[in-house]
Amino acid sequence: MYDLIIIGSGPGGFEAIMTALRKKLNIAVVEKGKLGGNCLNRACIPTKYFWSGAHSYQKLPLFEKYGIDLSYKKISFTEAKKNKDSAIAFLRKSFIQLLKIKNVPVYKGVGRIIDKNKVKITYSDGKEDVIEGKYILIATGSKPSSIGGLIPDDKFIISTEEFLEKLETLPDKIVIIGGGVAGCELAYISAVYGSKVTIIELKDRLLPLRSISPEVSRNLQRRFKKLGINFHLNRFVKKYEIVDEKIIITLSDGSELIADKILLSVGRIPNTDIDDLGLVKDEKGYIAVNEYLQTSIDNIYACGDVISSPMLAHVASYEAKVAVHNMFASEKKKVDYSILPWAIYTAFEVSHVGLNEIEAKESGIEVISGYYTFTYNEKAVDEYENEGFVRLVFEKDSKRLIGATIVGKEAGELIHILAIAIKKGLTAEDLHNFIFFHPSLSEIFSHATYDVVIGKLF
Amino acid sequence: MYDLIIIGSGPGGFEAIMTALRKKLNIAVVEKGKLGGNCLNRACIPTKYFWSGAHSYQKLPLFEKYGIDLSYKKISFTEAKKNKDSAIAFLRKSFIQLLKIKNVPVYKGVGRIIDKNKVKITYSDGKEDVIEGKYILIATGSKPSSIGGLIPDDKFIISTEEFLEKLETLPDKIVIIGGGVAGCELAYISAVYGSKVTIIELKDRLLPLRSISPEVSRNLQRRFKKLGINFHLNRFVKKYEIVDEKIIITLSDGSELIADKILLSVGRIPNTDIDDLGLVKDEKGYIAVNEYLQTSIDNIYACGDVISSPMLAHVASYEAKVAVHNMFASEKKKVDYSILPWAIYTAFEVSHVGLNEIEAKESGIEVISGYYTFTYNEKAVDEYENEGFVRLVFEKDSKRLIGATIVGKEAGELIHILAIAIKKGLTAEDLHNFIFFHPSLSEIFSHATYDVVIGKLF
Repeated sequence: MYDLIIIGSGPGGFEAIMTALRKKLNIAVVEKGKLGGNCLNRACIPTKYFWSGAHSYQKLPLFEKYGIDLSYKKISFTEAKKNKDSAIAFLRKSFIQLLKIKNVPVYKGVGRIIDKNKVKITYSDGKEDVIEGKYILIATGSKPSSIGGLIPDDKFIISTEEFLEKLETLPDKIVIIGGGVAGCELAYISAVYGSKVTIIELKDRLLPLRSISPEVSRNLQRRFKKLGINFHLNRFVKKYEIVDEKIIITLSDGSELIADKILLSVGRIPNTDIDDLGLVKDEKGYIAVNEYLQTSIDNIYACGDVISSPMLAHVASYEAKVAVHNMFASEKKKVDYSILPWAIYTAFEVSHVGLNEIEAKESGIEVISGYYTFTYNEKAVDEYENEGFVRLVFEKDSKRLIGATIVGKEAGELIHILAIAIKKGLTAEDLHNFIFFHPSLSEIFSHATYDVVIGKLF
Repeated sequence: MYDLIIIGSGPGGFEAIMTALRKKLNIAVVEKGKLGGNCLNRACIPTKYFWSGAHSYQKLPLFEKYGIDLSYKKISFTEAKKNKDSAIAFLRKSFIQLLKIKNVPVYKGVGRIIDKNKVKITYSDGKEDVIEGKYILIATGSKPSSIGGLIPDDKFIISTEEFLEKLETLPDKIVIIGGGVAGCELAYISAVYGSKVTIIELKDRLLPLRSISPEVSRNLQRRFKKLGINFHLNRFVKKYEIVDEKIIITLSDGSELIADKILLSVGRIPNTDIDDLGLVKDEKGYIAVNEYLQTSIDNIYACGDVISSPMLAHVASYEAKVAVHNMFASEKKKVDYSILPWAIYTAFEVSHVGLNEIEAKESGIEVISGYYTFTYNEKAVDEYENEGFVRLVFEKDSKRLIGATIVGKEAGELIHILAIAIKKGLTAEDLHNFIFFHPSLSEIFSHATYDVVIGKLF
């Protein structure tokens, strides 16, 4: 009997494996697809690869400023895709290699929990195995949703996963259904790599998430316009038909669009069909867990997209650590999502942690905010990336930092400075007097506190 | 009478001006050279500009990975220099513009404190003005040192300031005297922009600073070798002579080098010849200040390179804030240098905060360290910048973070995450369980705590 059977090897499974190996546990891994799961093979990591390519390409016209004499032609998605596959293979192989060195058995089939200690694995050839474990971790992730009559067909209608894992050539015209995070990330990549992009979004702005301030959406919409990305807000697809290998799309307002492909980016649904034990689900259909991440059967834990916490890779990793800890430690830990930074890589980098002004208001917290742009940030000017801003949200009386949004270079890294600041209760004055390296992008946090701590300039 | 006269407009003067304007003070600025001082015009900011150029050029061969079809020829320092001047002019003009809008008088001459409330300004045409201030802030900075018989002559022997402000064309062969921070930064830039570079360093390694771990020096030396940068350690210049417009340099070991230019990078000396009042100097010749940054005359404060704190732009800015606060606040603040991040931009980015292992040992602190490389960091792999590492130093019993070194992409930004962590007493476990965005470079901090918190992998 294994100490622990881990079903799924995405960010949750991976972190559980790392933790378990360091705890010298005897583990088995069940994975129906490629090791590394969606994040590594068809979501976060390929997205950031293509983003790096698109961003690099967009910076090329500025290289002459540094005295670099270059000429360049079009950018090729097909070439990038090949090398993206190699980069991901490098990461996946290092993972496989580690499992091999550590003699961890990997059962490459579909896992199903048939008993509180038993997992049945069904292989693609129909054969089966049953393995036993003292503990089981469900880290089976999620899959792309579809909407209305729009069902991926691998040809005209594709999911984000097909785009990121399989697509060899970009379509001339792509219509993206859904202007959320994945939609806006892939819109940027597609546009820079040469597609004509149109986004259809049901709500009244791109990135219409509660935690994303309208000012971020407005900024992004401006940038998208400059990039030639069209977007239709407050609309949805009423119907579509295929005529001569083209998709004719009719929107809710009666207007028509023609596309070579539709990319569906309308959220994800958890992979919860995992057991014969009747594991309890919550009201939204996720696997129900308590604050220790135990399911309704106490030796079976779950983490990541199958439970109702935010569907983010780093949440899964964090939960995996907590779950493995709780299985074997004398004192269990509760999950704590209070400080949860996230970032988006689209026409610019956006990141956020804590509350924005609107959320704070809704929670009845009076706030005061500090705003500063990168326009005159010396490091940003040196790198010709001085567009963007930071908005810091402070609780009005205590001046404690409770939230922050960054738009600009390295937003996805810089946000952690503020995440720790929020976690540790730093005030505007603490940030103002903190010594940031000069010249750095991070200095902006000290500048963004000036209004609140010392006084306004104008 | 002004509320405050600020002598010098570098990072210290600049921050004092910003603080004073927001406090609605009536101020005057005295500046003998260009607004922005050394940092903006001939040190930090031009260095990072050229670094961005060099780094961008070095990344070009990787752009084809992203499907970018490009061809490029040599990189031109002369072209980059022109555009660097424009970027810096943009920053300087925004500063000038602000002073104009705010009606701040700028006295463009050499300031000298002739009385506890009086500053005499001598202009280049010999004319003089005397202005009066309730408080005076000395922020006059420093100038490059020379060594032995090596005196800058604007032709064969130049200082780092001449290199960064005036040099139009890189010499074919440059010999850099001093393998410290500035020497290694300019060596990298010179090598990538096409010079044949040799460094002469008196000590046994490059970056021979107490706070820089030998492992950083070893890494840099390896990289420099790859870049074709020569370095002679444990040696100094015994003599030199000019023959046919070339410099023949004889080293202490008798070997000879030929150079077109010598770049002197052997430290800086403070600009302390500033008063007729006999302001007290400390034993090293800096202006003596108390912990409130008051000089021996209590309405005269000093900050930045003229006092004996670390010669870093961000230290000057921080001190300026403290000094202006102390002049006008009912309760004075003491300066606190306990958390002082710094970074170096050379063949790679290096940053550091707190103690390294050697310093901790010397202080009698038992430590345990966490090490992790960027090799398999997904974001770094996506960007083809996965060389480098982080070393976290924890106090052995408490596991509190007391120091950190980062080598790799964005080291100069990431270090602030750890700076705040040290400041707020975070332990290895706190960092391990902190939720870092995935994929990010910052995640490495969570990985680097695995050994200490959970156990070793091998």
